[in-house]
Amino acid sequence: MKTVSDIGERELINLAKQIYQEHDESIDLSDDCATIPINDEYVLASTDMISVKTHIPKGMSSWQIGWFITAINLSDIAAKGGHPIGILLSLGLPKTFPKSSFLNLIKGASSCAIHFNTSIIGGDTKENDQLVLSGTALGKIKKEYFLSRKGAVPGDIIAVTGRVGKAAAGLYELQNNIKHGAINELCEPIPRVNEGIFFAETKKVHCCMDLSDGISASLYQLADLNNVGFQIEEDQLPVSNRLIELARTDTSLDVTHLSLHFGGDYELLITTSEENFQYLKEEIKKYDVELTKVGSVIEEKKIYIQTAKNTRLILPNLGYEHLKN
Amino acid sequence: MKTVSDIGERELINLAKQIYQEHDESIDLSDDCATIPINDEYVLASTDMISVKTHIPKGMSSWQIGWFITAINLSDIAAKGGHPIGILLSLGLPKTFPKSSFLNLIKGASSCAIHFNTSIIGGDTKENDQLVLSGTALGKIKKEYFLSRKGAVPGDIIAVTGRVGKAAAGLYELQNNIKHGAINELCEPIPRVNEGIFFAETKKVHCCMDLSDGISASLYQLADLNNVGFQIEEDQLPVSNRLIELARTDTSLDVTHLSLHFGGDYELLITTSEENFQYLKEEIKKYDVELTKVGSVIEEKKIYIQTAKNTRLILPNLGYEHLKN
Repeated sequence: MKTVSDIGERELINLAKQIYQEHDESIDLSDDCATIPINDEYVLASTDMISVKTHIPKGMSSWQIGWFITAINLSDIAAKGGHPIGILLSLGLPKTFPKSSFLNLIKGASSCAIHFNTSIIGGDTKENDQLVLSGTALGKIKKEYFLSRKGAVPGDIIAVTGRVGKAAAGLYELQNNIKHGAINELCEPIPRVNEGIFFAETKKVHCCMDLSDGISASLYQLADLNNVGFQIEEDQLPVSNRLIELARTDTSLDVTHLSLHFGGDYELLITTSEENFQYLKEEIKKYDVELTKVGSVIEEKKIYIQTAKNTRLILPNLGYEHLKN
Repeated sequence: MKTVSDIGERELINLAKQIYQEHDESIDLSDDCATIPINDEYVLASTDMISVKTHIPKGMSSWQIGWFITAINLSDIAAKGGHPIGILLSLGLPKTFPKSSFLNLIKGASSCAIHFNTSIIGGDTKENDQLVLSGTALGKIKKEYFLSRKGAVPGDIIAVTGRVGKAAAGLYELQNNIKHGAINELCEPIPRVNEGIFFAETKKVHCCMDLSDGISASLYQLADLNNVGFQIEEDQLPVSNRLIELARTDTSLDVTHLSLHFGGDYELLITTSEENFQYLKEEIKKYDVELTKVGSVIEEKKIYIQTAKNTRLILPNLGYEHLKN
């Protein structure tokens, strides 16, 4: 008998989509965010579930768990350029979960919402054997500004906000009991909400996606959706300084590999024209964020990496996939 | 050290509300449904989580689990008089969960959404030790039609749609391996979406709430919110015929107790004036549903039951509360 782990998350989503589309062909689950048209706006809605099994490493505090579930849901709104309008938070708690941890978790969630000028507006609290959290972020955006995953065309530049490999550095610190700042980057990610709104309102971005699953997994999804290929330049990747530092003392850490495949950075990846890129790179500085060109969109439906040693290899799809054996 | 089960779900929600309100006083978690004003409408959003620990009894099929999580989320939209506009469905699945069960679950969820003229528009699929599901229902309603939990005034009639005690009869059948129809009423509840829209658009309903937690728990919440009391008439309760039948062969079944406290029926409880009640009772027949008067709103802040033997007792608050020792 086949189990869900013989199939993996992406194929499960495809199977579900086929069932949902039997009734309504317009349903599109290729995005992490649903869009509901209301007058000249879309209401955006996205949901993410986390559990000790998947996203809550040992050592993450209750406050951080609350921040994290809120942040990763807001990241899906950010990738559309949406303005957050509220968060729903469902908690499955073991009976033995301390009251103080509950309060800290709620405070973390609330702090993250407030940081992005929104609020926790509802939720549910139920008993569960292990801690499990499910968030739903709601947002809105004028239809004309909506950022899609579709729109990449050959010749576009691929660019990412901020740095990649931060979460990988954070997990390494957490697991090796080092406290040097990267743990916060893993456990308290800052979704690019303001930058997403900025991108959207310039109307200069062709397609946008967040990097929750890592660069390689994201590019494979975008290649499918846009019927294009990509070439990434290894020496242009804006790698986390902390990850580079850690790799100096532990040479088993593969900086490029972790930057491309580890995920958890919640940066935005966009494609845009060369001309627009210069404008965006300049203007986004007001948010104290850098926008870095990391490659280009190509016609050939393959994903390449031009290595620092100047050889061109196929970039494998090694991003994390849930429920995959 | 205090744990969440020393406190119980309702107090946990109060504690969370205090934290959320520190930032934004307007946040009101007294309702199962958040409201977001957009132009002349509210977007409604509600989330419910279920797990094998709480809502998935042994014997419930995967198809029914999918139907159930969708139905109970829609019930929160129904209680506001809202038109459903989409469902998000997050699944936490054990690795060993069969592919066929996954497909049946998705089909059940989709069938319920279609039944109410909406769709599953997004979701998430993650690994978890035990099956856990979190749904978010989205709806919309013109502001002028919105049904609130607030609005009950002394002199109002209390009325409920359909029958109560159905879910209790269903669980009894399931646990005693009897198959006589009530199992479906437990596992495939029909939220009163159309009836909610009808109530809202008449503008004749003073307050409305669904009966997911049972009549007693619902009345205690409404009494707090409206600063009123209630008197219920035992002999007017529209009890499930099947429950009465089962109680004839098993005299340990307390029909009145189960009808008042068991919950899981997803009917709507409303208060309205005597005059409006007659109108609503007549007009709702077009939905093949009965509306039954079960008592009245009183000034004294107590909740009474007038028994069939004509004595007046305090109705205790015995409805199920999650995470309560």
